[in-house]
Parts: sequence; structure tokens; C-alpha cells
Amino acid sequence: MRHDGRTADQLRPISLTRHFTMHAEGSVLSTFGNTQVICTASVSERVPGFLRGSGRGWVTAEYGMLPRATGSRSYREAARGKQGGRTLEIQRLIGRSLRAVMDLEALGERAIILDCDVLQADGGTRTAAITGAWVALKDAVNTLLENGALKRNPMHGQVAAVSTGIVDGHPVLDLDYPEDSGAETDLNVVMNEAGAFIEVQGTAEGHAFRRGELDAMLDLADKGIRELQEHQRQALEQAS
Amino acid sequence: MRHDGRTADQLRPISLTRHFTMHAEGSVLSTFGNTQVICTASVSERVPGFLRGSGRGWVTAEYGMLPRATGSRSYREAARGKQGGRTLEIQRLIGRSLRAVMDLEALGERAIILDCDVLQADGGTRTAAITGAWVALKDAVNTLLENGALKRNPMHGQVAAVSTGIVDGHPVLDLDYPEDSGAETDLNVVMNEAGAFIEVQGTAEGHAFRRGELDAMLDLADKGIRELQEHQRQALEQAS
Amino acid sequence: MRHDGRTADQLRPISLTRHFTMHAEGSVLSTFGNTQVICTASVSERVPGFLRGSGRGWVTAEYGMLPRATGSRSYREAARGKQGGRTLEIQRLIGRSLRAVMDLEALGERAIILDCDVLQADGGTRTAAITGAWVALKDAVNTLLENGALKRNPMHGQVAAVSTGIVDGHPVLDLDYPEDSGAETDLNVVMNEAGAFIEVQGTAEGHAFRRGELDAMLDLADKGIRELQEHQRQALEQAS
Amino acid sequence: MRHDGRTADQLRPISLTRHFTMHAEGSVLSTFGNTQVICTASVSERVPGFLRGSGRGWVTAEYGMLPRATGSRSYREAARGKQGGRTLEIQRLIGRSLRAVMDLEALGERAIILDCDVLQADGGTRTAAITGAWVALKDAVNTLLENGALKRNPMHGQVAAVSTGIVDGHPVLDLDYPEDSGAETDLNVVMNEAGAFIEVQGTAEGHAFRRGELDAMLDLADKGIRELQEHQRQALEQAS
Amino acid sequence: MRHDGRTADQLRPISLTRHFTMHAEGSVLSTFGNTQVICTASVSERVPGFLRGSGRGWVTAEYGMLPRATGSRSYREAARGKQGGRTLEIQRLIGRSLRAVMDLEALGERAIILDCDVLQADGGTRTAAITGAWVALKDAVNTLLENGALKRNPMHGQVAAVSTGIVDGHPVLDLDYPEDSGAETDLNVVMNEAGAFIEVQGTAEGHAFRRGELDAMLDLADKGIRELQEHQRQALEQAS
Amino acid sequence: MRHDGRTADQLRPISLTRHFTMHAEGSVLSTFGNTQVICTASVSERVPGFLRGSGRGWVTAEYGMLPRATGSRSYREAARGKQGGRTLEIQRLIGRSLRAVMDLEALGERAIILDCDVLQADGGTRTAAITGAWVALKDAVNTLLENGALKRNPMHGQVAAVSTGIVDGHPVLDLDYPEDSGAETDLNVVMNEAGAFIEVQGTAEGHAFRRGELDAMLDLADKGIRELQEHQRQALEQAS
Repeated sequence: MRHDGRTADQLRPISLTRHFTMHAEGSVLSTFGNTQVICTASVSERVPGFLRGSGRGWVTAEYGMLPRATGSRSYREAARGKQGGRTLEIQRLIGRSLRAVMDLEALGERAIILDCDVLQADGGTRTAAITGAWVALKDAVNTLLENGALKRNPMHGQVAAVSTGIVDGHPVLDLDYPEDSGAETDLNVVMNEAGAFIEVQGTAEGHAFRRGELDAMLDLADKGIRELQEHQRQALEQAS
Repeated sequence: MRHDGRTADQLRPISLTRHFTMHAEGSVLSTFGNTQVICTASVSERVPGFLRGSGRGWVTAEYGMLPRATGSRSYREAARGKQGGRTLEIQRLIGRSLRAVMDLEALGERAIILDCDVLQADGGTRTAAITGAWVALKDAVNTLLENGALKRNPMHGQVAAVSTGIVDGHPVLDLDYPEDSGAETDLNVVMNEAGAFIEVQGTAEGHAFRRGELDAMLDLADKGIRELQEHQRQALEQAS
Repeated sequence: MRHDGRTADQLRPISLTRHFTMHAEGSVLSTFGNTQVICTASVSERVPGFLRGSGRGWVTAEYGMLPRATGSRSYREAARGKQGGRTLEIQRLIGRSLRAVMDLEALGERAIILDCDVLQADGGTRTAAITGAWVALKDAVNTLLENGALKRNPMHGQVAAVSTGIVDGHPVLDLDYPEDSGAETDLNVVMNEAGAFIEVQGTAEGHAFRRGELDAMLDLADKGIRELQEHQRQALEQAS
Repeated sequence: MRHDGRTADQLRPISLTRHFTMHAEGSVLSTFGNTQVICTASVSERVPGFLRGSGRGWVTAEYGMLPRATGSRSYREAARGKQGGRTLEIQRLIGRSLRAVMDLEALGERAIILDCDVLQADGGTRTAAITGAWVALKDAVNTLLENGALKRNPMHGQVAAVSTGIVDGHPVLDLDYPEDSGAETDLNVVMNEAGAFIEVQGTAEGHAFRRGELDAMLDLADKGIRELQEHQRQALEQAS
Repeated sequence: MRHDGRTADQLRPISLTRHFTMHAEGSVLSTFGNTQVICTASVSERVPGFLRGSGRGWVTAEYGMLPRATGSRSYREAARGKQGGRTLEIQRLIGRSLRAVMDLEALGERAIILDCDVLQADGGTRTAAITGAWVALKDAVNTLLENGALKRNPMHGQVAAVSTGIVDGHPVLDLDYPEDSGAETDLNVVMNEAGAFIEVQGTAEGHAFRRGELDAMLDLADKGIRELQEHQRQALEQAS
Repeated sequence: MRHDGRTADQLRPISLTRHFTMHAEGSVLSTFGNTQVICTASVSERVPGFLRGSGRGWVTAEYGMLPRATGSRSYREAARGKQGGRTLEIQRLIGRSLRAVMDLEALGERAIILDCDVLQADGGTRTAAITGAWVALKDAVNTLLENGALKRNPMHGQVAAVSTGIVDGHPVLDLDYPEDSGAETDLNVVMNEAGAFIEVQGTAEGHAFRRGELDAMLDLADKGIRELQEHQRQALEQAS
């Protein structure tokens, strides 16, 4: 039994609210318990320099956190004049994860930018971001398909992400902030709909983890991600 | 009759939702029609350098806009490495407006930071920010009063703000984005509960405005701000 | 009677010295009492990106202050690596004010950059900058007309600016630094030659101002700006 | 058989040359084939702000690449004015990996900074950096023990790192640049002397990897890291 | 005979106007022909970190150029967000030159900052800056001596600077911009009142210079600097 | 007799190791005693903006120092977010020195970038950089001649550099760090193969130097540079 009453392999309450804001081609509020992330997908006809004239497209992500998304206020990166290392690491992870299910050739020479902004943080913001961004990306691609800008679907897979960790010696799924800050080990996993890995990132600052512990965490992640992908599909089934 | 059916002196639908996020001492979602701004008030025991050891406090504001709060995506200021001139101008305005009703001596040597982040923009983001930030500040101050950190109330006034402008030759209240981008003149007004001015900022890029037009806009602002202050009071009356 | 012997509605001694430096198409030293600002107008055949190929021109401004223009040395913005919020706010105001009397279509696809650099500060630097910049702009445009680069005059108005405020309970015109730092309210006004408003910016950090006080300040501004526009015309009448 | 004649589970020629430069408390040239990284450990009596007065120490890392360490010249981060996301990600990884075997309490209130600078890049720079940095850190700690600044050894483990990947459908160990740029999957592993994981970072941009592939890569990493740790021990046995 | 009628060893008209602006402890307008530089000396009771608590003082310089000091407008360094290499090089030179005649022990733990800002450029801005800054520094030090903050004079020498060069095969003194931009070689010399060198900086981008040419330029510099030092003394003799 | 046993006019042991790293068109490790600098020459088909379409080429340099190249660790410029004044000054000097022997017309519209990175510092890093960079540039140019990209040799001269100074009242050649930090005067000289000057930079922070001292230092530099140019020629004679 965990501090919030969940079992070891239980996700927090999940919701994926589409059309959360009105301007973006895709806009999803992704909540994992108290963690809330707005994920928008914006279509741009302008690609990065290295792709100009190539006929190929790009999918990239930017991540941010409102200063008071956290228990104590963190500084505003725009005011500080640079994005921190953690921010860059997370937005690179989100971008790679979604490019993994995208045929950039089929997308044509255009970019889709995924903005993931954390309104409220309680652990697992990067996994909520990836899971929500996939739905926002789907909506944006559908818009392009519907208005004829795209002839065929460039998305060839489904992506979701979840965190796992070792807390008090036990492997658990989808850590909230109190669990995360006390965890001995932290493993973020990104998987596709076939249960194959897109990213695996495990870290032990204090206590190194054994192969058996890794296996247990991977099993939990597999179960959690299947459930998250079900949430994604249900969200998409709702009338837009 | 305006493009959205409002009369010239009519505000858009207003809401001020307290406790919108869970961590901040004050957290308000301020919406003026489709414009949505999260305003949080964070208490810090650390004041800026020029006040250290003075026994006096500080109230300041930071403003930001999610990249896809707007019709076409704007760049992320944190990624660009600096805040734009418009952003700095707005956050300085918010800070001055709220300091105008605050006794910084009575606040004691602590700072309250107001973060105003635009989730969705449709004109009037700065006025929605000021109007919401006042409620968030009130909640934060009440927290300090309740937990005994403050002996007496340092807030000596109420502040709200609204925009007015000349659209198609007619003075109108609380412009939305289509009106704002077509306006000949734009006037933002910040007032206290006694109907006195804290800020008046009028701009004409193309068509200069006459004294009579200014007077008409000030009358509209006066009416609008009284209504906004009523919304503020009603929001505070709701059980926290 | 004011601390320097002026009456409430009296400007400080004004001078607008053209051809102050030798390289710029327009170069004016604008002095309001001890406040001294060099205003240069530079013609560039290169416009900002959003205007390239449009056939339309641009007028913009940059503002700076020598580090020891002030009573105690302020840091050099170039060394600090960014322009402060106050600087950006002022240069945006100068740019808007002068664009208000400029037909950018008629200017053709070229830019005029107004650099306003404060050599000595004693209150009212932004109003001295706008008043001097208009004369520098006029000289630069005349150069373009004389050398045939322009067929018709793109300037359709005259612009000057002045500050007013409430000092010790009384409305006064053209505040110097001691008055400004003790003022309860500060109002900067930019007007054209027809007495219509281009910008009105009033601020009360401590004491909010009433409609009657605003009216009194606007009356003072109107009188002061008429006199400043007379100074501008006299400066232009002198042989170049 | 791989393009350079190695078997799937074979490391490139490894060398760890201590005392490579003369000033640092620890200085190691770490080479994995053609990849060459200088790793220096510098002792500082100054800790980051959040540790001042705590009695606890800190271990951190910075990573850089000479502009022409690579096949085509990359820009100099110092000239560009910021470190890229990849750089920050790698230096955070190096820092975490070495803190994992350090008792920061026992280190006392001092910092050890690990600078890892790539002279020549041919794949695996981060793993060569971690493997070399551990030896440099060991030398720096030994200096502190020998001169009496430390009473007891704060290092409680040994750390090395290696990359593995799936190339042409086969799992291989210690990828060089041609293999790395063609790999379907890339897995970096950091382990301690007990064979437990400190970091696991696996990425698939195109082809997602199955659990069986992950297991095969982890087996290769385990073998490679044991060999690297033997290289580390041999390097330390040589007379300083 | 030179293009402006001067002989090879003739300075341009020189003036050193003290008390040019009103706030600084020393304020000198230094003009060498059409080159005009404002040099202010500001006394600060705050020294750089490496001197705090040492009882020793510091003299440093900052250099800037108004954007339209030059024939075509150069960008504003504050807007670009950094000082260029040429600026940093010049301000380091000014600082070193003036520290060379200052007893920093005798100055006590305070700093004097020399701001040299070019209003109009026509060659030789760095030499006009050094020559003017020495007079401004002298005035600032005299203020400290007069108000009792200093017991004894920390200035033990006099400093002036001049440029020389090879133009059309002939060594000439004090080059203006047309000469400078066509010069084969450019030599800046800083000397004290005893005719000894504080700085010698000679550069040949195209045509390397022989020892005999160097000697001829040094002779010219010696003559020019003696005259400049006479100008400095005369300026100081005028009633303040 | 000097502290390391050298005579006043004796260089430290010099070596210029070509092909030090594998990727660059020219790559030289330049060592002057314990000072070690990697100098690489990279050919780029992209020239700076002001040369595009001109048919002319460019040679430029960038300089850096590994953080622990020095006795105590200096900060990493990339992490600090800007290059220091000393760095910019040195890289500008290296660039000018090598452009002095280059026919940029004959180079064609391409750039050669010289990266000089200090691995270990013990005085004279800029002179070791220039001396090594010339050899790297030669190798890069030879590559272009051999592969037919260049028809004729754009290099028309040989460049080397050395430092001299006054230490304990005596002029000495090629100062190491202990001598440099105690020197009263420091003179860096860059010469071509005809013994003519490309750069002369002499600095006295405390003790000004007389003409006779300057002459003695120039004589030493002349002797030292002839020897360094012999080292350069020998390095180039070795089979690549």
C-alpha cells in the first residue's frame, strides 16, 4: 500500500482533455493525478535550416514549467535568460519520442512543434507531457489530413510514457512527487503500441540497482503504458 | 452593436476562479471572454538586494505567454534567451499597479511575486492579469494574516484594470483581439476602489485622439472597472 | 513657486541644436534644463525582415543613457549584456510616437533609426528625446527629399512630448529630477500639432489621482507641447 | 565481424594515461580507439550556494568538445554564448555517475570539478569521459588523503561506462562513430564494481527495441564494463 | 603635406574641456580634430570581489561608441547583448594605462571607473580616450583629496596616448579616419611624463614594417605625447 | 642565469607535432616548454556575410583554454556564456597575424578557421598558438593545393611569434609563467620570414619601459623568431 492508497502497479487518475485551448491545431491537458501539463501541437510551414529544400519535415518539442507549478517557486527561465539543463534534457526526450512514430518524409516540408507546459507539478511531468503530446500531435495531423494538406498519414505508431522507481525497496509505478524525491532509483520508459522501447532512462544517484530490479520496473512500465495507450485511444474517440 | 453582439459599454463574460492550482499562496484563473490568465502569488522570505535589512517588503510581477496562447505560435522567450520589450513593459505595469495598494512597511521584509501566465490570448491579457493578480495577492496576504506572519493587513485598496479603445470611430469597452488589432486608439486603465487612477496608458499609432475621445474612453473604463471590482469581491466571498 | 523658481506651467530653458554631430542624416542635441539628449536619425536601406519586399518603410528608435549621466553611476547595459525594462519601454514609446506622423508607404522600403542617448539626466529624458528626435527625423527626411531619394514628404505631422505631475499636491509642468523623484503622480504626454494625443502615460505608485487632477495635468501638457513645437519650428528655420 | 574487425562483444583498444597534464589534482587521457578525452579533477574549497555551511561537499562535471574534434568543424560553444542541450545532458550524466560512488558527507565542504574535454571524437565520448573521470577523481581524492585534508576515503565504489547498440540487427559493444551514426538503437550503461546499474539510457529514434534486444545489450555492457574497470585498476597501480 | 594640410609630425587641434557634464567627479570632453570622446571618472566605494577586505583600490575603464558616432551606423552593443572584441580590447587598454600611474594601495579600498564614450569618431578614439581620462581621473582624485577622503595623492604620473602610422609610405602622427583606413601600419603609443612607454601596440595587416619604420613612428609618438601632456597640464590649470 | 637554467636569449624546448588529431585539414601540437596548444586549421566553403559573392576568402582564429590548463581552475567560458576580453584579444591577434601572410583573393571564396586550444599553460600561450597555427594553416593550404581546389599558393610568407620581457631588470626571451607573472614589462612580437614586424604589443602595468629596454627586447625577439621559423620549416619537412 502506497502513501496515497495505490497499489504498486497502479497509475494515478489519468485524464487527457482535448481542445483545451482554442488556437492550436492540437491542444491537450494531460493530468496524471495532480500533475497537469498543457500539450499543444502547432503546425508551421517553416522547417529548421538543415531541412530547407529537402522535402522532409520535422517534429520537435519545447518544455517549460510555470514558476509556481512547484511547491516552492522556481525562477522563470525567460527572466534568467536561459533554459536549464533539466529543461533541455526533457524537451529533447519528448521530441525524440514523438519523432520515433513519425514518417518525416510523409509529413512533407513542414514542422510540428509540441509545446509542453507544466501548470502544476507533482512528479512525472515528462511522462505526462509525452503521453499528452502524442494526442495533440494526432489531432494536428488529422487536421492536416482533413484539410488536404497531407495525402497520407505520416504517423505510424502510438507513444506513451510512464515513470517507475524503487521506493522503500519496492518497485512502484507512476511516482508522485513525495515518492519521486525519496526514490532510490528512477526509471522513465517510453514505449510504442507494440510494447517495444523508444526510450529507457534509469538513474540511481545513491543506490545502484540490480538487473532484477530493472526487470521488475520494466514489467510495471509495460503494464502502465498499455493502460495509458488505452486512455489515449478513448480520448481520441470522443467527438472533437 | 459589436462583432460579438456586445454593446459599447459591455464587458465580456468575466470569471475569477480561486485555488486554480494547488501550490501557490494565491492562485487565480482570470478569464475575460476567451482570454485566460493564471495569476499566482508566491510569498518569499527573500527580498531584492536594495531592501535587505530595511524591514520593508516588495511586491513584483512576472508575465509570460505560452507559445501557442496566440493564433500563430510565438517563440518561447526562455528558448530565445530574453524577455521581449512588450513582456517587460507589461510585467512592470502589473507590479506598479499592485504596489499602489500595498503598504510595503506593513508587509515586513518579505516579497510577494505575482506570476501572470497567459494560457489563451484574445485581447486584454494585461488587464485580466492585473484584475486576477489582485485576488491572488489578497489570498496570499490572508494566508499570512491567518498564520500570524502578519499582524495587520498591508493591503489598503482594491485594484482592477480594463482596456478601452476607439474602434470604427466609436469608443468601446474591453476589446477582444479582432477589435484590438483594428483599433485606432487603445487605452488601458488601472483604478482603485475609489475610482482614482493608478495607471492610464493610451496609444495611437495611426490616428491621434482628441480630448473628447479620451474622456469617453475614461468614462467607459470607470464603468467597467466598477463591475470588475464587484467580480473580485464576489470571488473572495466564496468559501476557500 | 517651484524649487527652481519656475511657475507651475513653465517649461525649463529649452534648446534644440541641429547638426550636433557630423555623420548622421539628422543630429540634434535636445536640452530641457540640465537634461541633455543626443538624437540622431540614420537612414538605412535595410528594413526589418517582416517588411522585406513590401515596399513599405520603418521608423524605429533606440535609447541609451551614458553610465554617468545620472547622479550615481548606473551600470553600462552593453557590459551587463541586456537592455533594462525601462530602456525598452522608452525606446518603444519613442518609436511609436514618431511612426504616428509618418506615412510608411511614402517612405518607401527603407528604415530610419532614431538613436536617443542621454548625456546628462535631470528628469524628462524621454520627452526631450521625442521632441529632439522629431527634429532629427525632419532633417533626415529633408536630406532624402533634397537628394531625390524621396519624391514626396512622408511626414504628415509634428510631434513633441512633455511630462507633467502632481508635486506637493499641485500639478506642474516639465518636472526636473528632484520634482520627479518626489512626485505623487507622473504623466507623460505626446501630442501632434493639432493638439491631439499620440500617447498618454500616467502612473501613480503611491497616491492615485482623480479625474480632476488628470484634467489639470492634460491642460498643462497641452500648453507645454505648443511651446515645444514652437521651439522645433524655430530650430528648423535656422540655416542648416 | 564488424567494419573494423572487432567481434560483437569486443571493446576498442583502451588506454587511461594518468598525469596527462601537470596542474590538476587528477588528469587522465582516456582513449577508446580514436576517441580521446582529457579528464581533469580539480579540488576547490568553494561549494555551490545550496551547500555553504552544510559541511557537505559536491562533485560536478563539465563537458566540452574542441571545435574540430569532429569530422566537420562544430561551432565553439563559448563563442555562441551557450552550451548546447547535448553538452548539458552529458555533463549532468557524468556528474550524477560519479556522485553515485561518493560519500559527500565524508568529502567535507569542498567541491571536486571534473572537466571532460574531447580532443578527438569517434563515438562513445561520454563513456570514455565517465571511465576516465573516475580515475582522475581517484587521483584527486588520494592527493587529499595524502596531504591530510581528508581523514577517510569518501569514495565507496568504482564506476565505468560503455555504449552498446543494435547495428545491422546485431547487438554490439562500444560503437565507434560509423556504427553509432548507423545504429537503430543506442544504449549507454554506467555500472559500479558490483555490476549494479548507476545509469541506463537507451534511445531508439527510428526502430523501437524489444525486451530481448535490451537484455542482449545489457549483457554486452556488463562484460565491457568489467573489462574497463580492470583497465582502471591497472592504470591506478602504475607508479604516479 | 597631408590630406588635411597637416605636416607629418603635427597633431590635429586638441581640446580637453573639463566639467563637461555635471554629475561625475571628473568629466572631460576630449577632442582630437573631429574625434570627440566624453571621459567621466566616477568614484565608487565598492571594489571588485577579489579586492574586498584588502584595503587596496581599483581603477578600471569602460568604452562605448554611440551608434551613429561613425559614418555608417553601427549596431548598439546593449541591444546586441554583448560588447564586441574591439570594445573590450580598448577598454582593457585604457584601464591598464591609467592603473600604470596609480598607487592602488594609496587609493584605499575604493574604485574609480572611467567611462569613455565616443560621441563622434574620426580616428584615434582610444588615444583621445586615454588622454582625456587622465584629466578626468585627476579631477576625481583631487575631489577625494579636497574632501579629505584621501590623505595623500595616489597618482604618481601623467599619461597620454597618440597614434602614428605609415601612410603612403611615410610615417605620420595622429591619423584621422581617412588616413587610418588607408594606413599600411598603425601604432598606438601610451607614455608617461618621463617619456617611458606604458603601452606600444603596432599592427600590420598587409604590409609588415621594418625596424627603421618602427623607430620613426616611435619618434613621432614621443613628440606628440609631449604636446598632449602640455594640453593636459593647461586644462588642469584652468579654474574648475 | 634564469630560474630554469636558461640564458637570457634562450627559447624553451620547442616542438611542433603535425597530424596531432585526425579530422582537421591541419592539426599541430605546439609546445613551448610546458605550454601546450593544439592548433587546428579547418577549411570551410562558407565565408562570413560581408564576403559572400565577393570571390575573396577569409582566415580567422578562435582561442580557448581548457579550464584546468592553469594552476588554479578557471571557469569554462561556454558555461559562463561569453568569451572574456583576454580571449577575444588573443584570437583577434592570431587572426590578424595569419591574414598578414595570406592572399585572400588567391584563397578564393572559402574560409580557414584556426582553432587554438590551450591544453596546458605555462606562459606564452598566444605565441605558441601563432607559431603552431602557421604550420597548421600551411598543411591545410597544401591539402587544397594537392586536391586541386587551389591552383596557386595563397600563402606568401611565414609567421612566428615570441614573447620577451624585463624580469628583475633584465631583458629575457620566451617567458614562462613564473617569469611572466613577475615581469615588469611584457612584449609580444610577431614577425615574418624577412624579419619585419606584423604585430608588436608591449605592456607595462607598473614600471614603464625606456626606449633602450624596448630595443633590447626587440633584438631578443628577432633572434627567437628566427629560431622558431627554423623549427616550423623542419616540422614541415617531415613526411606527413
